[in-house]
Amino acid sequence: MEAEKKRVLVVSAHAVDFVWRAGGTIAQYAKNGHAVKIIDVTLGQRGESESLWKNRPGISEEEVTDIRKQEARRAAEVLGAEISFYDMEDHLLTFEKTDIMRLALDIRKFHPGIVLTHSRYDPLNTDHDNVHKAVIAALRIANVTGTFPEIPPTGQVQIFTFEPDQPDMCKFIPDTIIDVSDVYGVKLEAMKQVPTQAFMVETYGRRTAHRGSLAIRFKKGIQYAEGFARVRPMWESSLTERRGGEMILQSL
Amino acid sequence: MEAEKKRVLVVSAHAVDFVWRAGGTIAQYAKNGHAVKIIDVTLGQRGESESLWKNRPGISEEEVTDIRKQEARRAAEVLGAEISFYDMEDHLLTFEKTDIMRLALDIRKFHPGIVLTHSRYDPLNTDHDNVHKAVIAALRIANVTGTFPEIPPTGQVQIFTFEPDQPDMCKFIPDTIIDVSDVYGVKLEAMKQVPTQAFMVETYGRRTAHRGSLAIRFKKGIQYAEGFARVRPMWESSLTERRGGEMILQSL
Amino acid sequence: MEAEKKRVLVVSAHAVDFVWRAGGTIAQYAKNGHAVKIIDVTLGQRGESESLWKNRPGISEEEVTDIRKQEARRAAEVLGAEISFYDMEDHLLTFEKTDIMRLALDIRKFHPGIVLTHSRYDPLNTDHDNVHKAVIAALRIANVTGTFPEIPPTGQVQIFTFEPDQPDMCKFIPDTIIDVSDVYGVKLEAMKQVPTQAFMVETYGRRTAHRGSLAIRFKKGIQYAEGFARVRPMWESSLTERRGGEMILQSL
Amino acid sequence: MEAEKKRVLVVSAHAVDFVWRAGGTIAQYAKNGHAVKIIDVTLGQRGESESLWKNRPGISEEEVTDIRKQEARRAAEVLGAEISFYDMEDHLLTFEKTDIMRLALDIRKFHPGIVLTHSRYDPLNTDHDNVHKAVIAALRIANVTGTFPEIPPTGQVQIFTFEPDQPDMCKFIPDTIIDVSDVYGVKLEAMKQVPTQAFMVETYGRRTAHRGSLAIRFKKGIQYAEGFARVRPMWESSLTERRGGEMILQSL
Amino acid sequence: MEAEKKRVLVVSAHAVDFVWRAGGTIAQYAKNGHAVKIIDVTLGQRGESESLWKNRPGISEEEVTDIRKQEARRAAEVLGAEISFYDMEDHLLTFEKTDIMRLALDIRKFHPGIVLTHSRYDPLNTDHDNVHKAVIAALRIANVTGTFPEIPPTGQVQIFTFEPDQPDMCKFIPDTIIDVSDVYGVKLEAMKQVPTQAFMVETYGRRTAHRGSLAIRFKKGIQYAEGFARVRPMWESSLTERRGGEMILQSL
Amino acid sequence: MEAEKKRVLVVSAHAVDFVWRAGGTIAQYAKNGHAVKIIDVTLGQRGESESLWKNRPGISEEEVTDIRKQEARRAAEVLGAEISFYDMEDHLLTFEKTDIMRLALDIRKFHPGIVLTHSRYDPLNTDHDNVHKAVIAALRIANVTGTFPEIPPTGQVQIFTFEPDQPDMCKFIPDTIIDVSDVYGVKLEAMKQVPTQAFMVETYGRRTAHRGSLAIRFKKGIQYAEGFARVRPMWESSLTERRGGEMILQSL
Repeated sequence: MEAEKKRVLVVSAHAVDFVWRAGGTIAQYAKNGHAVKIIDVTLGQRGESESLWKNRPGISEEEVTDIRKQEARRAAEVLGAEISFYDMEDHLLTFEKTDIMRLALDIRKFHPGIVLTHSRYDPLNTDHDNVHKAVIAALRIANVTGTFPEIPPTGQVQIFTFEPDQPDMCKFIPDTIIDVSDVYGVKLEAMKQVPTQAFMVETYGRRTAHRGSLAIRFKKGIQYAEGFARVRPMWESSLTERRGGEMILQSL
Repeated sequence: MEAEKKRVLVVSAHAVDFVWRAGGTIAQYAKNGHAVKIIDVTLGQRGESESLWKNRPGISEEEVTDIRKQEARRAAEVLGAEISFYDMEDHLLTFEKTDIMRLALDIRKFHPGIVLTHSRYDPLNTDHDNVHKAVIAALRIANVTGTFPEIPPTGQVQIFTFEPDQPDMCKFIPDTIIDVSDVYGVKLEAMKQVPTQAFMVETYGRRTAHRGSLAIRFKKGIQYAEGFARVRPMWESSLTERRGGEMILQSL
Repeated sequence: MEAEKKRVLVVSAHAVDFVWRAGGTIAQYAKNGHAVKIIDVTLGQRGESESLWKNRPGISEEEVTDIRKQEARRAAEVLGAEISFYDMEDHLLTFEKTDIMRLALDIRKFHPGIVLTHSRYDPLNTDHDNVHKAVIAALRIANVTGTFPEIPPTGQVQIFTFEPDQPDMCKFIPDTIIDVSDVYGVKLEAMKQVPTQAFMVETYGRRTAHRGSLAIRFKKGIQYAEGFARVRPMWESSLTERRGGEMILQSL
Repeated sequence: MEAEKKRVLVVSAHAVDFVWRAGGTIAQYAKNGHAVKIIDVTLGQRGESESLWKNRPGISEEEVTDIRKQEARRAAEVLGAEISFYDMEDHLLTFEKTDIMRLALDIRKFHPGIVLTHSRYDPLNTDHDNVHKAVIAALRIANVTGTFPEIPPTGQVQIFTFEPDQPDMCKFIPDTIIDVSDVYGVKLEAMKQVPTQAFMVETYGRRTAHRGSLAIRFKKGIQYAEGFARVRPMWESSLTERRGGEMILQSL
Repeated sequence: MEAEKKRVLVVSAHAVDFVWRAGGTIAQYAKNGHAVKIIDVTLGQRGESESLWKNRPGISEEEVTDIRKQEARRAAEVLGAEISFYDMEDHLLTFEKTDIMRLALDIRKFHPGIVLTHSRYDPLNTDHDNVHKAVIAALRIANVTGTFPEIPPTGQVQIFTFEPDQPDMCKFIPDTIIDVSDVYGVKLEAMKQVPTQAFMVETYGRRTAHRGSLAIRFKKGIQYAEGFARVRPMWESSLTERRGGEMILQSL
Repeated sequence: MEAEKKRVLVVSAHAVDFVWRAGGTIAQYAKNGHAVKIIDVTLGQRGESESLWKNRPGISEEEVTDIRKQEARRAAEVLGAEISFYDMEDHLLTFEKTDIMRLALDIRKFHPGIVLTHSRYDPLNTDHDNVHKAVIAALRIANVTGTFPEIPPTGQVQIFTFEPDQPDMCKFIPDTIIDVSDVYGVKLEAMKQVPTQAFMVETYGRRTAHRGSLAIRFKKGIQYAEGFARVRPMWESSLTERRGGEMILQSL
C-alpha cells in the first residue's frame, strides 16, 4: 500500500496561486513519488502582475502573459509537478459551459484521487470563486459514465480548498493542517521563481511559518504548515489519534 | 507503529448513550486491541428509563439505577470496554467545579489520545450539553502541569463528538464517518443488553444502516457507519486520498 | 378539534418582557378561549426600572418590586392571562439546580402544549439567556416520568422564542410571524399599564407595526405582527398553503 | 376550507429526483384531491443513469433519455401527478435567461400556491443548485405584473426545498417534517417504476423510515416521513401546538 | 481632513432602490459636500412598477421606463446626487461579462472610496443578488492595473451593503448604523418623488424610524437611522468609543 | 475633541493574556494619554506557567503565582497601563454570582467607554469563555441604575474581543484591525517581561507581523497589527472612508 502512487490535481486560477497557497503540500507529494498535475487557468496577466504593468509602461498583455507563464513553469518544475495552461482571460475569469466540460474531460483523463483548488467564497476576487464552482461542477461530470461514455469515470475525489489571501474575509476556516516543514526549502525556492510578485515571498513565508506556529501546540517540532478546508467529510476506518506530540495516522 | 496501543476514553451522560451513538466504533477499537474506557456519568435513572417507571409503578430511583447499571455493564462488556460510574444525578445533570476537577484527574490518569463524547448543543437534553462542556474544560485541566503536578499531563487529545438523537435540532453535521460494518454484529449484541430501552435497537439499527447507505456513494461495500464531528482540526502529514471506491489512509 | 383548549405558558425574565414581545399573541390566545399562564421570574426591579430609580432617589428595591409587580399584574389581566411570580433577583438572574427543578415542576403541573420565552443568545442581557437555558432544561425534566413520578409528564412542547430588544445583536431571525392586527388594541392597552417603562409604548408600538409592514408583502391587510423563532422543527401532516379565507399570500 | 384545491408545483432537476425526495408528500397531496404538477427539467440521461450506461455498452443518449422519460412518467402517474418535460441537457445543466423566463411563464400559467424543489447548495451536483436558483429567480418574475402583462401574476408562493442525497454535505437542516406514513405504499410503488436506479428503493426506503423514526419522539405512531426546509418564514394566525403525542394544526 | 471630499458610488438594481434603503445616508454625504454618484442599472420597469401596470392597462414597457426614470432623476436630485442609467432589463437582470467590464470601467473612472449596494443573498429578488455579485467582481477589476492600463486603478474601496426589503429572509444583519436624523426631511422629500411606489413612503418611513428606535439605546437623541453591513473588516488606527450617549469617532 | 481622555478596561483571564493579544493596542492608547486599566482575573498559575512547573520541581502554587504577578506587573508598566489582580483560581476559573457582581462594581467605578476581553467561544480553554461571559453579564449590571444605586451607571460600552490563540478553532473572525506598527517596540518590550512564557515572544511577534501583512493590501505601510471582533454593531454619523493622511486604502 505504501507504494501506491497517488494522483493529485491542482486547479489554480492565476499564474502561481498554487505556489503561495499549496507549494509545500505539492512538493511533499512530488517528493514521495506521487503524480501532481497543475491546471493553470489563467496567467493572472491582468490582475496579478502589478509590477510588470507599473514598471514597464506600454507592456502588452501578451508580453505579460509570456513572462508569467515562464514563472509558473519554473515554479512547477521546482515543486516537481507537471503544469498545463488553459490560457483563459483573467479579471474577469468566467466559465462557459464548454469550459467546464473541457475541465471535466481533463479531470476524467487525469483520474485524480485528490484535488486542490480555491475556496468557495472570495469577496476580493471573483475569479477564485468561479474556479471553485467550475471545479465542483466538473468533478461531478467527470464522475458519471454518460457524459463521456468512452472514458472510464473517476471515483469520488477528495477535494481540499486552499487558504485564500484574506482568510477572514473569505470565512475560510481550515480543518486540515499539513506539515510542510521538511519541504519548506523547496517551497521557498519555488516562490523565488516569481519575480513579478517578489513581495509575496515574505508574505507567504511568514504565513507558512504562522500556520506552523499555530500547529506546534498540537504537533511537536512542526515549523511550517499549510491549511486546507475539505468540501466533503472524511470516511475513515477508525478515528485517528496523535500521541506524544507526534501525529499518527493509521488504520486499525 | 501498527502495534501501538491507543487509549480511547468515552464520556457518556446516561446509562448507555455510548452504545447507541458509538457502539460500533468502540467495538472496533476493542477488537483491534486498543484500550477503551467508558465513564458513565449517570445511569439515566430518571430521564432515560421510561419503561421502568411506566411499567413498574412504585419503583424507586435506586432500583432503576441498579437495573440500568447492570445493563450498562453488560453492554460495555460486549463491546470490549472497561466502564466506571460517577453515580451522579440526571435530569438535571450539573457539574460543580469539583466534578470537573474529578473528571480532569481521571482523564489525566487514563491518559487518552482520543475522547468520544456528546456534542456541544442539544436543545432537547441539557445533560448532554453539560457533559460536553465539562469534558472540554477537563481536557485542558488535564493537559497542563500545574493542576496536578504529581501526575504527568496528557498530550493534546483528539476529540470526536457523537451524533445526537435529533441531529438536525442539534445542528450536528458529521465530518468524520466511521465504517463499522465488520463489527455491527457486536454493536447489535450490545444494544440487546438494554431491555429498558428496547425500542432503541430498531431506531439505532436503522440509523447505523442509514449512515452506511449515505457513505456507500463514497466507500464501496460499506453497510453500517457512525458519524462524528471533530472539535479541533486535523494535523496531517499529507492530504489523504480514497481510490477505486476504497478508503486509503496512509502517511507519505 | 376547533373546540380544544390550548395551554400556553409564557416564561418572562423581567416584569413585563412578555407584554412588549408577545402581548398580541397572548391576547389572541386568551381571546379565543385558550389558557395562558405567565411565569414572571423577576420584576426587573434592578435593571428594568430606570425611571423609578432616577426619579425617586432613595427608593428601596422592595418598593420598586411592588410597583413593578402591580404593573405586571394589570398588564397580564388586560391580556387575559394568569400570572405568577418567582420573586427572584434580577441583574444578575441565575438559576441554581433547585430553581430549574421548581420551574420543571410548574411546567409539569400546568402541562402546556406551547411555551413562549426568551431567545438563546442576548449579549446585552444575560438574564434573558439564563431564562432561555433554564426553560430548555426544565422542559426536558418535565417530559420524563422519573423526575416527578407522581405527576404525569408533559408531551413534547412546541417552543417559540420571542424577538429580543436588539434582534440583530442577538442573531435573532424570526421564522414564524403572527398576525396580531385584530388584538393590537389589547396589546396597546396592556402596554399602557406600565408607566415605569412608558417610553416602550412608542418603541414597541412601532416595532409591532414594522413587523406588520414586513409581512404585508405576504398577507394582505396585516397591520401588526410579532415575530418568533422556533427551537424545534415543525411536524406537519401536509405542507401548508394559505390561500383564500385564512392566509392570503399575494402581491400588493 | 377543506374543500379548497391546492396547486402544487414540483421542479425536479433529473428524471425522478421528485420520487426519492418528495414522493410521499406528492402522493398525499394528490390523494387529497389537490393538483400536483411536476416539471422535469432533464431526464438525468447522462448523470443519473449509470446502470444503463454500464450494462448496455454503446447505448445512445437518446435511448437513455427515452427509457428515463418512461420511468418518470410511470412514477408520476403512480403518485397521481401531472408531469411535463423540458428536455434540457444534464451534467451540466445550465439556465440561460430564456430558460428562466420559460420557467417563470409556466409557473405563472400553473399559478401554484406551493413549490417543492431542490435546496440551495449541493457541492456534489451543480445541476441541483442551478435548478434551485432558476426556481427562485422565476418565482419573482412570475409574481410581478410587468413581465407578462397579459397573464395574471401569481401570489407569493411558499417554497419548500427537499432533502438532498447527502444532507450533511449540503448543510441541509429540515425545518418541516411531513408524515407520509399513510401513503408510503404509493411512494414505494412509484420508486419501483424506476429500474434504472433500482438500488435507490432500498436507500430511500430506509431514509424515509429513518426520518419517521426521528419524528416519532414528537408524533406518536409516525412511521415514514420526508424532510423539507423552507426558504421563507411562515406567516400564521396563531402559534401551533401538538398535544398528547398528536400533531394538531389548527387556527384559533 | 474635514475638508477632504469623499467620492461615494451607489449601485442600485431598480429605479429607486437607493432612496428607500440609503436615501438618508446619501443625503448626508451630499449635504457635507461629498460627491455621490448613483448608477441605476434598471428602472424596475417590469418588476417594481405594479401600480402603473395595474392602473393603466395597455401601458407599454417603454412608457413605464420613462416614468420611472423621471422619478429616479427627481429623487436623486432631491438627495443631491448625480445619477446615470444603464437601461438594462429587469426581472430577470443578468450580467454578461461585458456588462461587468462596463461597470468596472465606470467605477475606475469615478474612483470612489466608498460603494453602497445590495446585499449578497436575496431569495425574493435575484436581480439584487446579481447586482451585488457584479459590483464585487467589478471592484476587483477596477483595482488592478492591467485591465485598463491607460486609467489609474482605484484603491481598495470600502463596501457597505444596504438593508434589503425583507432582512430576515436575506439573513441580513447590519453591523453599521448611520444616524440620518438631521437629513430625514430630505429622505422623506425624495421618497415623495416616487408616486409609482407611493405605499413605500409609509413602509420605509416606519423602517427608518424603527432603526432609529433600536439605536436610541446606544446613541442619545437619534430618531432615524439606516442599517448597513460591511463586506470587509475595518482597518483602524484605534478602537473607537462612544461616551455619554454620543458617538465619538476619532483617531488617537 | 482630540483632547478627550478615553477610559479603556482590559479583562484578562490569565497573567499576561493581555500582552500577547492586545499589547500593541494598549500601548497605543496609553501613549496617546488615555487611561487603560487591566483586571487580571488569575495569574495563570496552574495552566499557563509550564516552564516553572517543569523546570523547578516542587515549586508551590504560591511561588508560581508570585512570579507571574511580577511579570504581569512589569508588562503592564511597560505598556503604560494600570493593573489590578483578582487572585482567583485558574484551570478551572469559574465565576460565582458574587464574582460577577464584584466585576460589575469595578466596571461601574472605572466607568470605561471601551472594554477589551476574551472572545465568546474557546474550545481549548474554558477559562477564556468564562471570562467573556462574566464580562458580558457584568457590563449590563454596571449599566443599570438599580444594582448599585449610589454609583452612577456606565453608558453603553463598546466591547472588542481579542484574537484567541487558535482563532480557527474558536471560529474567531476579526472585523476590526488595529495598526500597531508605531508601538510595536513597546509590545515587544512588554512581551520580554515574561520569561515564564518566553517562547510566546516569537509566536506572537510572528502573529502580529502576519496580521500586518494581511492588512497591507488595504493600508499602505502597515507592518504590525492586532485583530479584534466587536460584540455589538457600530453606530456612526457617517460611513467612513479612509483616504489621504489618516487611512490609506490603495493597492500595492
